[in-house]
Amino acid sequence: MPDFQSILEDIYQKLTNDDDKGEVASYIPELANVDPDAFGIYLQFINGEHYEVGQSQTPISIQSISKVLTLAMAIQMEGLNLWERIDVEPSGNPFNHLSLLEMENGVPRNPLINTGALVVADILVSQLKHPKEEFLQFVRDISNDQTINYDQKVFLSEQATGYRNFAAANLLKTFGNLHNDVDEVLDFYFHQCSISMSCAQLANAFYMFANRGKCIQGKLHLKKKYAKRINAIMLTCGFYDEAGEFAFEVGLPGKSGVGGGIIALLPNEFVISVWSPGLNEKGNSKLGMEALEMFTTQSNLSIF
Amino acid sequence: MPDFQSILEDIYQKLTNDDDKGEVASYIPELANVDPDAFGIYLQFINGEHYEVGQSQTPISIQSISKVLTLAMAIQMEGLNLWERIDVEPSGNPFNHLSLLEMENGVPRNPLINTGALVVADILVSQLKHPKEEFLQFVRDISNDQTINYDQKVFLSEQATGYRNFAAANLLKTFGNLHNDVDEVLDFYFHQCSISMSCAQLANAFYMFANRGKCIQGKLHLKKKYAKRINAIMLTCGFYDEAGEFAFEVGLPGKSGVGGGIIALLPNEFVISVWSPGLNEKGNSKLGMEALEMFTTQSNLSIF
Amino acid sequence: MPDFQSILEDIYQKLTNDDDKGEVASYIPELANVDPDAFGIYLQFINGEHYEVGQSQTPISIQSISKVLTLAMAIQMEGLNLWERIDVEPSGNPFNHLSLLEMENGVPRNPLINTGALVVADILVSQLKHPKEEFLQFVRDISNDQTINYDQKVFLSEQATGYRNFAAANLLKTFGNLHNDVDEVLDFYFHQCSISMSCAQLANAFYMFANRGKCIQGKLHLKKKYAKRINAIMLTCGFYDEAGEFAFEVGLPGKSGVGGGIIALLPNEFVISVWSPGLNEKGNSKLGMEALEMFTTQSNLSIF
Amino acid sequence: MPDFQSILEDIYQKLTNDDDKGEVASYIPELANVDPDAFGIYLQFINGEHYEVGQSQTPISIQSISKVLTLAMAIQMEGLNLWERIDVEPSGNPFNHLSLLEMENGVPRNPLINTGALVVADILVSQLKHPKEEFLQFVRDISNDQTINYDQKVFLSEQATGYRNFAAANLLKTFGNLHNDVDEVLDFYFHQCSISMSCAQLANAFYMFANRGKCIQGKLHLKKKYAKRINAIMLTCGFYDEAGEFAFEVGLPGKSGVGGGIIALLPNEFVISVWSPGLNEKGNSKLGMEALEMFTTQSNLSIF
Repeated sequence: MPDFQSILEDIYQKLTNDDDKGEVASYIPELANVDPDAFGIYLQFINGEHYEVGQSQTPISIQSISKVLTLAMAIQMEGLNLWERIDVEPSGNPFNHLSLLEMENGVPRNPLINTGALVVADILVSQLKHPKEEFLQFVRDISNDQTINYDQKVFLSEQATGYRNFAAANLLKTFGNLHNDVDEVLDFYFHQCSISMSCAQLANAFYMFANRGKCIQGKLHLKKKYAKRINAIMLTCGFYDEAGEFAFEVGLPGKSGVGGGIIALLPNEFVISVWSPGLNEKGNSKLGMEALEMFTTQSNLSIF
Repeated sequence: MPDFQSILEDIYQKLTNDDDKGEVASYIPELANVDPDAFGIYLQFINGEHYEVGQSQTPISIQSISKVLTLAMAIQMEGLNLWERIDVEPSGNPFNHLSLLEMENGVPRNPLINTGALVVADILVSQLKHPKEEFLQFVRDISNDQTINYDQKVFLSEQATGYRNFAAANLLKTFGNLHNDVDEVLDFYFHQCSISMSCAQLANAFYMFANRGKCIQGKLHLKKKYAKRINAIMLTCGFYDEAGEFAFEVGLPGKSGVGGGIIALLPNEFVISVWSPGLNEKGNSKLGMEALEMFTTQSNLSIF
Repeated sequence: MPDFQSILEDIYQKLTNDDDKGEVASYIPELANVDPDAFGIYLQFINGEHYEVGQSQTPISIQSISKVLTLAMAIQMEGLNLWERIDVEPSGNPFNHLSLLEMENGVPRNPLINTGALVVADILVSQLKHPKEEFLQFVRDISNDQTINYDQKVFLSEQATGYRNFAAANLLKTFGNLHNDVDEVLDFYFHQCSISMSCAQLANAFYMFANRGKCIQGKLHLKKKYAKRINAIMLTCGFYDEAGEFAFEVGLPGKSGVGGGIIALLPNEFVISVWSPGLNEKGNSKLGMEALEMFTTQSNLSIF
Repeated sequence: MPDFQSILEDIYQKLTNDDDKGEVASYIPELANVDPDAFGIYLQFINGEHYEVGQSQTPISIQSISKVLTLAMAIQMEGLNLWERIDVEPSGNPFNHLSLLEMENGVPRNPLINTGALVVADILVSQLKHPKEEFLQFVRDISNDQTINYDQKVFLSEQATGYRNFAAANLLKTFGNLHNDVDEVLDFYFHQCSISMSCAQLANAFYMFANRGKCIQGKLHLKKKYAKRINAIMLTCGFYDEAGEFAFEVGLPGKSGVGGGIIALLPNEFVISVWSPGLNEKGNSKLGMEALEMFTTQSNLSIF
């Protein structure tokens, strides 16, 4: 059994001394204010053990990581119907996603790109009476932490500058693949992206994906077969145009966000979350990717 | 000298008996209400002679034909600066224009596709104190007809269903190629498309393009060099994906609109406008295209 | 422990009674001659146990499955240099691969699409003294079966009709990403695709990918880290535009060929090969895909 | 009436003193050997007058200009059937033409891009008993000059390096849009591109397009309606991705070649040919484009 605390500390040591920490996302003013040197890891095993290093308890903007959580909530309610409106193929596209959406007649490639997540958001807006409240409660429940909340400043910042998402939602509307009002869906979507969670909270929230649908409290939040399939989607689609690279270098299902967070997991074994705000040119946390590669190499734990 | 009245009547006779009149545009409820059998032609020579047949005095929704008129007004004010924000190449694209815009970093292919016309609209909104009023006045002036007006019902119909234009405007905004508020630009754009003009009024409005910038009253509204260049743009870009076909079959600069109108002209010779509401699969008036082909063949008048 | 023989027989029973067996590939005359009702499965565990059903010993044309084997041979010789000429991202592309190659300046998306496999073939042609003989020997060695051979008729059939591959190789040449003569590389490539192997032989050949690089005889043919990475590539790129679907439905790394064969594996556990010649519309064996989905569902074995 | 000789001399003076003459094409060794400072213009009026300046009698490699001549020969034989295999829309594409061909199922956008010209070449190979000899004779006849010939060195140079054309021809073959053997069609195609003609000879050869199909000797080589339509195609498709720009700046049908030649014409008025070997970034003669723009501006002669 490897000494996981040593591995994490070794990664922390090496990477925090790296001169090139990537570029902090600046397209949302609120994200640009973060400390570029922040770095944290939280490692939670299914058997209950956990390890952490650095700023693993600092809240960060989860951004696109939220797409996995809305997908989980939607699939639990919609089941297979969901796949009539969204595909499950990697986008694998160097060009922007609106082109792809247009060429494929309004069916997003997968639920983890923006256009796909907008359709998922639309489903939740249709299905839930109080979408924002109920989704937040879902996140709190699976994380076993009632303090998790939306960050209003981040929400406003995204809403004021999210022209591309306005474009995407309107384009989905032209294809009949957005059933609710554009503004209502975007209000929900910008909220979900604005949730603040620490590495520790993220690891708790994603525990259920590594544990066949059961959260750390043992409660079933997601059918086993759905957990398995969302893991498959994370592996093939979780890292934008770098999904293949991540599978190749790290070998775990996972999801990144432009806030610099990454969550990854080995089914039946562990969940790991990393945070470092600087992004590489593909939009994933630069040191976060390196940390996970180091971790799977040193621990010899991966799905392949 | 051919007998132009006979030619027009012959065309009218043959085409109004055509069983396949194409499909009337239905995406805007207001456009779908038009009589599918309506057909009119108005032919105005630079020397003053004119000929007409059918419903040449019935007002129609000019739709995309308005793009040439906003371009004329914008180029007169902006001159060559305009081309820093819009290209002049044919789109020649079977796919939708948002893809192209995305792949070319927010610079529309030409001013006669929707995304290009939105940038032209944005320029007019920036340059004019009362954009809608001043543009309408410009159209009235070049047409020498103060009765021309916006059709409020068509405007509201387009605004309520124009998701693709909302998507396009927001996408332009992400590339920094829309300087004003999205809603303000679209309000102007939906208005310009909603203008009602008869074939006769259209022929008068476009007289200046065939007459080196001078309207039928002899007043210069457009520099000669700009008239020449807009003619070139109409020839290469005036008919969506059918521009080459139109140049090939008809051989005149022109512009179509989904209301079923087409305007075409031979520089220094004549302007001709045709109206038949049914569209072919490329979105141009089916009988209108055929009428113009018959006209240039029978009259032996074309630029080639 | 599930009764694997029962599972295989149950799958055999259900699927061979399926009316819709897909379409046998007809683009190569030699492939079209196969019995459309043929069906076989071979399941080999790392611990030595094996199970089989149907025509598991009938030789089939392995076609694209060979791409994994050339990749293994090339990566063992070239190491990381390989990735300077080929990427590892899913192609995820509804359009044809030449477009993608052109848009990405001659760097194939991954080594399991045709263009990528041509670069791998080019590397072997450069590195090996007698490429065809040495590659065949490699396949025989890892399979522990010296009877495996090229099928000359299939080779000639592919060479005579492989215009798309001639196009691809010439296009790679324009980008400088094919170092040898086009005809020489294609001669090797058409040969590799023409190899005949039964399900049993395939399962033996791929044993090493499930066993950290060691073949069934215990000999190391591939570094452990390369086996792991090729598994990652199979998972994200092994099934053309259906890679995401396969990961989603089956959850195993694998590779299909137009001969109707599919190989899949669970690292450290087992290799499974299936053969049914009829293809679905994405070009993968229709019943083969269904068989693997049934197998992972019933056995509850997958990487997720 | 302008003093045309003065205009030509003025253009010659200004442009030969231009420091930035563009880049001479280097992809074919034989083309790279040309004098980068060479410059010539030949202006032939339909009424018989002609003017010239600079190296207007020096033979140059006509390259893509030959596509108009093969098209003329093919359309005269095939008539409208031709358009079942080639479209007439501008390619307007920043990406390479193989992508477009693939996305449009093997029907080239127009006969003046490489893929379209290969289909035209295929038609001639099918229709003619001795394709190379008969096409050369056609060029000699319309030019009224029996000394015109293929340049064997240029031919060999193109054949040895023309991987992209090999790729294109093979791709056309996969779509069934190349009926003859790939090598036979390419042999013809590389020959047609290798023809050497001076500006004076080019102006004579293209006289018929400006004169309703009759050559300078008064002989009808092309039906009037075909001459008109080829002019339309030259206007919309004659300058790669710069067709719109050329129509916009120059306003004449024309065609360029990578040898630095450009031919342009005003129907019923004149033909003009220009040669300057340096190309702009779109692959058209840099000074050639400028010379034609200056000429139409100063002479006030254009179709618009």
